[in-house]
Amino acid sequence: MEEKELIQKLYYKYHNALINDVIPFWQKHSLDTEYGGYLTCLDFDGTVFDTDKFAWMQGRQIFMFSKLCSLYGVNEAWQQAAKLGLDFMLSYGKAASGDFYFALNRSGTPLVQPYNIFSDCFMCIALAAYSRIADSKLERDYYRQEVLRIYQRIQERTANPKGIWNKQVPDSRNLQAMSMPMIQAMMAIELEGIIDDALIENRIDESIDVFMNRHVDKKLKCVFERVCADGSHQFDIMEGRLLNPGHALETLWFLMLIAEKRQDKALIEELAEIMLWSIERGWDTTYGGIFYYRDYHNRPLDKFESDMKLWWVHAEALCALLLAWKLTGSKKHKEWFLKVDQWTWQHFPDSQHGEWYGYLSRQGEVASSLKGGKWKGFFHLPRMLYSCSAWLKEMGELV
Amino acid sequence: MEEKELIQKLYYKYHNALINDVIPFWQKHSLDTEYGGYLTCLDFDGTVFDTDKFAWMQGRQIFMFSKLCSLYGVNEAWQQAAKLGLDFMLSYGKAASGDFYFALNRSGTPLVQPYNIFSDCFMCIALAAYSRIADSKLERDYYRQEVLRIYQRIQERTANPKGIWNKQVPDSRNLQAMSMPMIQAMMAIELEGIIDDALIENRIDESIDVFMNRHVDKKLKCVFERVCADGSHQFDIMEGRLLNPGHALETLWFLMLIAEKRQDKALIEELAEIMLWSIERGWDTTYGGIFYYRDYHNRPLDKFESDMKLWWVHAEALCALLLAWKLTGSKKHKEWFLKVDQWTWQHFPDSQHGEWYGYLSRQGEVASSLKGGKWKGFFHLPRMLYSCSAWLKEMGELV
Repeated sequence: MEEKELIQKLYYKYHNALINDVIPFWQKHSLDTEYGGYLTCLDFDGTVFDTDKFAWMQGRQIFMFSKLCSLYGVNEAWQQAAKLGLDFMLSYGKAASGDFYFALNRSGTPLVQPYNIFSDCFMCIALAAYSRIADSKLERDYYRQEVLRIYQRIQERTANPKGIWNKQVPDSRNLQAMSMPMIQAMMAIELEGIIDDALIENRIDESIDVFMNRHVDKKLKCVFERVCADGSHQFDIMEGRLLNPGHALETLWFLMLIAEKRQDKALIEELAEIMLWSIERGWDTTYGGIFYYRDYHNRPLDKFESDMKLWWVHAEALCALLLAWKLTGSKKHKEWFLKVDQWTWQHFPDSQHGEWYGYLSRQGEVASSLKGGKWKGFFHLPRMLYSCSAWLKEMGELV
Repeated sequence: MEEKELIQKLYYKYHNALINDVIPFWQKHSLDTEYGGYLTCLDFDGTVFDTDKFAWMQGRQIFMFSKLCSLYGVNEAWQQAAKLGLDFMLSYGKAASGDFYFALNRSGTPLVQPYNIFSDCFMCIALAAYSRIADSKLERDYYRQEVLRIYQRIQERTANPKGIWNKQVPDSRNLQAMSMPMIQAMMAIELEGIIDDALIENRIDESIDVFMNRHVDKKLKCVFERVCADGSHQFDIMEGRLLNPGHALETLWFLMLIAEKRQDKALIEELAEIMLWSIERGWDTTYGGIFYYRDYHNRPLDKFESDMKLWWVHAEALCALLLAWKLTGSKKHKEWFLKVDQWTWQHFPDSQHGEWYGYLSRQGEVASSLKGGKWKGFFHLPRMLYSCSAWLKEMGELV
């Protein structure tokens, strides 16, 4: 197939899935018009199987409906859907500390304490995205103030994100998780123009430094999920050897977007190279697809999901590989993108009831019938679809 | 096969596996003669893949080596192995509160706070078992005092076992877990003669009441893992529909042992009936073996391990079904025991390197090469082997 034709076909596949499959599924099944907010635990056919409301899922869905309005023009249904979640979370989601509870019941009674900083990170990008599409200046200003407050609190909490609920004995093990630099990069991208530029640039510099000089080991050609503060490894424990290829690829494309904006060609090339290490380590040469976890020494993993194939891992890999192909023109990245694209679209989508399954066995069989749950919501899949569509559109010079 | 011959063959299989396979594997690979305590993260060939020390695993292994001395006569190597863990845990394992840390590093530095009451429950039965085989009266008295102290603390903590690390908003959801009545029954069995009889009998009455009148739903013929305080269900959330057949069967045989001792024939018959509900709900009619989790409404489960086949589930099922067969003579329980026995021995043991794999896929393939980890230690398998051996010996009137 000629490259232009290939890109065109890909574009229509990604765009069509977003507009005609994924968005309608969540609009139809997840809006809780009775109590507000979203019902995210959805079985294969959209049946609600749990009515609790999780801040991660609420925040991400507010963000997504708002973002779609920014990308494709304000659509009243999407805007109202965003507002449905926003009003619910602002009414019931905040604890006295101003931090967001991890979970509420259907009507908004708090269930789980605000121990998880990512609840606040997702609510922060949710409010930022909504502030860009709010009808009145009053609303826009109000939501932006709230973004600033939440962002400030997040930065204050980064040294001990779990606060009083932290079960780790202080200073007993100095392993640093990749999730903080990753989420800082994501917030930097989504908060542009809302948070002070200089502050954002500082955070970005920190994230790049922590990721590139600690989590990426250039000698071993490997990205580690948890490293010591000086970038060294603790190889005698499982945690120190843990590889999470999907997480690495997600962080890599966030940083590549930033590098693109900074016109840092050297960094783009470096990130593209690291993507290859990650996808090569993560790819299952027997059954295809990308493993959730690997152990650097191929020792046993203590996580049941290690060998499973998850929707978000594949979504993030597609974003990473396509962006690298687009920005570097690399044939290797193109080939990897097409390989992951093929496996992903063959195994995850449900052509009968719509949307994608989230959890496949190593062999690629559906391991859980859910389309949404406590951890799968309206986020990774549509983000991948709108990102890839946009990049493919540019690559194919499509109108 | 004639029944007597069948029982004899079974007895030798169970007894031989305990004495010639499982015990030597842990003696050979897990004793940390350098730092004390046990290394429990063991790969298929016994290679240590993580050096952290988890209180559950340490306590259970101290208990097991001590118990073996009580059952088979004090063997110096077993006694020393028990002492190795005991000294380590008494030196390093206790926080200022007197509760046991959840995890320590190899040399005993505490890593994870004492948030988990089961650490204390396992240390409590560990000390009790060791106090029965200690050489001197001084030691015996000392360890018994410690048992009393820990037991007292456990009872004080039952209303909020996680203490300050509890992330649940107080009184927000009144679901009660089956683990507390289960562990109380286990402690009652193992602490007999050490804790005051009247106190133990009270705890047993409570456990039987909570289990039989709340977790067991006689109308629905089902054992629920989490129920409301009045025994009603919360079916709109996953937690309220959760079934854990292995856990139910474990609790059922603990209570059946107690009913045997109390000569309560009606309770024995009732428990035997409930065992059938549990094994029938848990059995995988497609691939064989017992599922980890089920959903009462067959909705999706949010736990990756739900469809997997785990060693401990099968070990507890074997104990339950054999004890019921022994005490009631029921043909149905005999048939179920033989069916579970066959699947278990075909899939879990590793004839090349010894011991059993712990985690199989739904299809019965080895999903993790580990023989020991953060959650699999020297406990469920040997307990099942010594329990079943003893019962088979009695059933076969073997000498």
